[in-house]
Amino acid sequence: MRSDGQHDRSFVRTFFTSPAAVEGEADSAKMLRRAVQLRGMRAPDVWVPDNEDATAPSMRDDGIENIVDVVAEHGESFPGEIHPRIVWHRDRPDTRYQGLQQMLYIADPERGAIEYIDGFVVPEVGDIDDWKKADECLTIIESEYGLDEGRLSMSVIVESGQAELALADLRDEIGKPTNNLERLSLLVDGEVDYTKDMRAITPTGELPAWPELRHNTSRSASANGLIAIDGPYDDIRDIDGYHERMTANQAKGMLGIWALTPEQVIEANAAPLPPKTGTWLIDVNGHAVELNAEDDVQVYDGEQLSLEKIESDRYRLGVGSNERTVCDDELHEELLQLTDYVPSLNDIVDSMETFEEATEAGTGAIAMDNSTTLSIDGIEVTISDERMWDEATYQASQTPISLFQDVYENRPDQREELREMYGEHVVKRAMNVG
Amino acid sequence: MRSDGQHDRSFVRTFFTSPAAVEGEADSAKMLRRAVQLRGMRAPDVWVPDNEDATAPSMRDDGIENIVDVVAEHGESFPGEIHPRIVWHRDRPDTRYQGLQQMLYIADPERGAIEYIDGFVVPEVGDIDDWKKADECLTIIESEYGLDEGRLSMSVIVESGQAELALADLRDEIGKPTNNLERLSLLVDGEVDYTKDMRAITPTGELPAWPELRHNTSRSASANGLIAIDGPYDDIRDIDGYHERMTANQAKGMLGIWALTPEQVIEANAAPLPPKTGTWLIDVNGHAVELNAEDDVQVYDGEQLSLEKIESDRYRLGVGSNERTVCDDELHEELLQLTDYVPSLNDIVDSMETFEEATEAGTGAIAMDNSTTLSIDGIEVTISDERMWDEATYQASQTPISLFQDVYENRPDQREELREMYGEHVVKRAMNVG
Amino acid sequence: MRSDGQHDRSFVRTFFTSPAAVEGEADSAKMLRRAVQLRGMRAPDVWVPDNEDATAPSMRDDGIENIVDVVAEHGESFPGEIHPRIVWHRDRPDTRYQGLQQMLYIADPERGAIEYIDGFVVPEVGDIDDWKKADECLTIIESEYGLDEGRLSMSVIVESGQAELALADLRDEIGKPTNNLERLSLLVDGEVDYTKDMRAITPTGELPAWPELRHNTSRSASANGLIAIDGPYDDIRDIDGYHERMTANQAKGMLGIWALTPEQVIEANAAPLPPKTGTWLIDVNGHAVELNAEDDVQVYDGEQLSLEKIESDRYRLGVGSNERTVCDDELHEELLQLTDYVPSLNDIVDSMETFEEATEAGTGAIAMDNSTTLSIDGIEVTISDERMWDEATYQASQTPISLFQDVYENRPDQREELREMYGEHVVKRAMNVG
Repeated sequence: MRSDGQHDRSFVRTFFTSPAAVEGEADSAKMLRRAVQLRGMRAPDVWVPDNEDATAPSMRDDGIENIVDVVAEHGESFPGEIHPRIVWHRDRPDTRYQGLQQMLYIADPERGAIEYIDGFVVPEVGDIDDWKKADECLTIIESEYGLDEGRLSMSVIVESGQAELALADLRDEIGKPTNNLERLSLLVDGEVDYTKDMRAITPTGELPAWPELRHNTSRSASANGLIAIDGPYDDIRDIDGYHERMTANQAKGMLGIWALTPEQVIEANAAPLPPKTGTWLIDVNGHAVELNAEDDVQVYDGEQLSLEKIESDRYRLGVGSNERTVCDDELHEELLQLTDYVPSLNDIVDSMETFEEATEAGTGAIAMDNSTTLSIDGIEVTISDERMWDEATYQASQTPISLFQDVYENRPDQREELREMYGEHVVKRAMNVG
Repeated sequence: MRSDGQHDRSFVRTFFTSPAAVEGEADSAKMLRRAVQLRGMRAPDVWVPDNEDATAPSMRDDGIENIVDVVAEHGESFPGEIHPRIVWHRDRPDTRYQGLQQMLYIADPERGAIEYIDGFVVPEVGDIDDWKKADECLTIIESEYGLDEGRLSMSVIVESGQAELALADLRDEIGKPTNNLERLSLLVDGEVDYTKDMRAITPTGELPAWPELRHNTSRSASANGLIAIDGPYDDIRDIDGYHERMTANQAKGMLGIWALTPEQVIEANAAPLPPKTGTWLIDVNGHAVELNAEDDVQVYDGEQLSLEKIESDRYRLGVGSNERTVCDDELHEELLQLTDYVPSLNDIVDSMETFEEATEAGTGAIAMDNSTTLSIDGIEVTISDERMWDEATYQASQTPISLFQDVYENRPDQREELREMYGEHVVKRAMNVG
Repeated sequence: MRSDGQHDRSFVRTFFTSPAAVEGEADSAKMLRRAVQLRGMRAPDVWVPDNEDATAPSMRDDGIENIVDVVAEHGESFPGEIHPRIVWHRDRPDTRYQGLQQMLYIADPERGAIEYIDGFVVPEVGDIDDWKKADECLTIIESEYGLDEGRLSMSVIVESGQAELALADLRDEIGKPTNNLERLSLLVDGEVDYTKDMRAITPTGELPAWPELRHNTSRSASANGLIAIDGPYDDIRDIDGYHERMTANQAKGMLGIWALTPEQVIEANAAPLPPKTGTWLIDVNGHAVELNAEDDVQVYDGEQLSLEKIESDRYRLGVGSNERTVCDDELHEELLQLTDYVPSLNDIVDSMETFEEATEAGTGAIAMDNSTTLSIDGIEVTISDERMWDEATYQASQTPISLFQDVYENRPDQREELREMYGEHVVKRAMNVG
């Protein structure tokens, strides 16, 4: 895309890499051609023609040409941003010089690709002075080709301890007159190389979870107005694992993730959006179990909870291997503590509208009521919870809505799927709230 | 308090906010008046008349006047420190200017409140240069009203990625001749706004636990001689949850927490103090279960552990679904590994006195013995453990005692409750040890 | 060792401290004499005659003399590096001056110890300016005794919030012309004093796990080319706990650990090396359970998994309390997700050799196959998994091999034990791969 719908996205859900040149194929640009034609939920927010790790070193000259050809031909109609990845290494000046040459080639306006390209992805960066070297390459390219200073964005792969440390230095350096680091766009974790750089070992060879790295990346994105993206999830068949990782990332403020396949793109495009329908959860020995909605009743049909009425206002409640006798009120209170609700898009919009009306009428905080009927072993119990909403709650709940609005505005190719998923009416209200 | 009992507390357990003005009440200062009259375990170590988020924007002019009135009238006899919270925002100069005006109003000696006020709480700070702006406002106020430079303390709410980064910069900036950042007192996390600033999403809207933020806050407090306080725990009926949070915080060195109600104040005042009586725990599938003391025997009466004597020096020990046959020695060793002891105030004082005597006699390390009799399925087993104490163990165990001493000295209004709780004798010894 | 086999180790598995002088013994240097004669897997990579916390203050003058005597006599033949720990404290100039004097005494070439000493361990450091003070002491000593600048390495104990912050500053300071911080060698966590400095409290007095401290130490080691070491594990009888700690550390890139006894040295020397034989694991309710290899079949004989054939291509699979009916393919897929493989040294060498051949032949990524037969309730199921290996996977898997090679090269005294453990053939191949 670009040229110059300009679209500076506030959110990026998906960072999809494609090999720039594959060996032994009639058309070495096959993967690029396939990717650039993706649309809708199969198309990523950011597409990365990858002339680094995904492309064999011997194929990288072809890769650069393929990128230029495919982007020049199809870039205009691609619905997401385009950020090719070139080679770079904090410890190797020759690799950095190759990276400069690759970018010079791709960015040459004569070749017709640059107008659809948003920026470049720079891997293997080191400390902040190394980031400045890459920034300087982009400044030179802009100057050489008469592009506006800052026209090309720069995204980095954080895959070394040095780069992780640079995340904390960034805010002191961005905005200095001798660099153009304001061009920074995505901060992307690269856990495979990071694991190597940290010299970590796990018994099975599985990657460590690196929670601190992800926190520090997300924090730097927050402090500098950038966007945090998690690295690749290798086990492409393990959709549940991919989802769990995204849920954990979202709780860190890292709303985007790498995708290796169009199937992962679909999952990762949908994951940070609120669900179509709300769900009740119940905590069973520390695990959240989803209840089955039957009409308006939420049914628990596992075997870890038990409930029996032993006389009027006396129940026997079993949770795991613990049993206790409780009265009506205690039962209500106990179940309230055990349950939780995952709101739908519609629910969030409802609450926000209600809060907005209340503040317009001069009230700063209101109680939102949430009630349902649970059924355990055939006994129905109605629980009802109140949650106070103030300005801060309101603003915190706004993140998924802002993301939804950002997607809807910047990805016209996904609108129909979103309207089908949520219904026309909810989508319209979601676009007007906040 | 203050004026000038001066009391620079080394520890702060409780940070209790009260709305400065509530709408629709005959007396908009009702909440302040109620709070300022709290005493004993219901009164916090730090009381925060809150003219920011807890008070509707339309009521904040009233709020400032209420703070001045209530503190001028009752401040002298309030047993804790008083730190009003004013408005501030890293991104909004107009809000910062309002903050300055609010502080100028409150601090005016003519109004009679300032002599009881220890300092101000500044919310929504950004990076360290923003902290300096707030510090400069306080310097101006001190200069304007002829107060000693540094007389007013400054506490900040860490509720942005920028502020979290500033925690690591603080030690390089504090002590520079161009600022008075030595006035810093509390570093308080604010997880609601932090979650918004980090753009984090959780399915149920629950706040993420943010372990790294809490670590970084505690670390900065440690490195700069300040005090770390965790943010509000919203679910005010969930006392167990509040306790779990405090236990987790204490293991991070974050000994204080926000309190929203006098009930939370009671809990949070008591939580970091050692218990009156010691307790034995046994690990059952990764969960620590408290044993019931019957006379001198610690009885396990759950169903996850089983013990049977099958012949002389042969037992069958079941832990969860695992069973194994063990001899006497193995049984002892196994149970020793599974059990743990939570010492009482008395126990800690005992150990410290013993160690102090030993070092006076020239011994650098001594073995502390701890033994008890367990009863499982009616079979009694006596276990006995030794732990080496050296200078480092001694000093690490001193933290709860130092906290106890700090409380006892600075909070005369809590002495009677403490003596009732622990007994006169233990309290006296605890005040003399260390 | 040293003098001047020089051996700059890339990896350090074990950091073994011995009291420099014990009271009440005929020979106060007894512990030193015993330690310096350790060989093979009982001897540490780094040996630390400890004249700080392990030695009573009143014995430290003796300690210094003992260190000189024992190292001068036995140092030449000791197979690991020798790094005495002296006294130091960020807050006490008198202690720092004592530290300087202790080092001056030990390093005096007249006394004959220094040629076998690699460097010094400096405890209780504060922020980076305090590290520079210790570095300056070493520079003075080198100058005084005509040693090359940088000849003496410096290792620090990170046991304060200030020192943890310094870890992030190090890369900006190392290499400045006014210091010799390039002499830094080990970054060692000291959790007992760190816990005190952070003022953390746990109910049982157990040390907190401090995951962020360990991450930050490991990250700084990675960013500055240093080596990260975890602190002491006090419960010396709890070998399982020590192992779990090391496994967690290794996943953070912290491959070395403190050892308090020769038994801990053996464990910690072996822990980061790949196992002799591979093992299959199966995930049972979140716990990895090792399967028993009987011939080529991996047998599960616990009670948490069940498998029953109910008709052709129909199985009932039970995992914990969940049961479901699955067809052949689903069963295969399900079991594949539940299982994991811990490769042996031989397996890792195999995979690396295969990958090296493939890249020589021009292929950038190959699929490694891994298959086995599982047996659950007597039913055998063959599963087979493919994992893609590219350059990054290859390099990440290299860490344990590089460590193995480093050990084999620098510790001739362990070669025989390694050959006995793994077999001559595998050892030879492991030394040639990578």
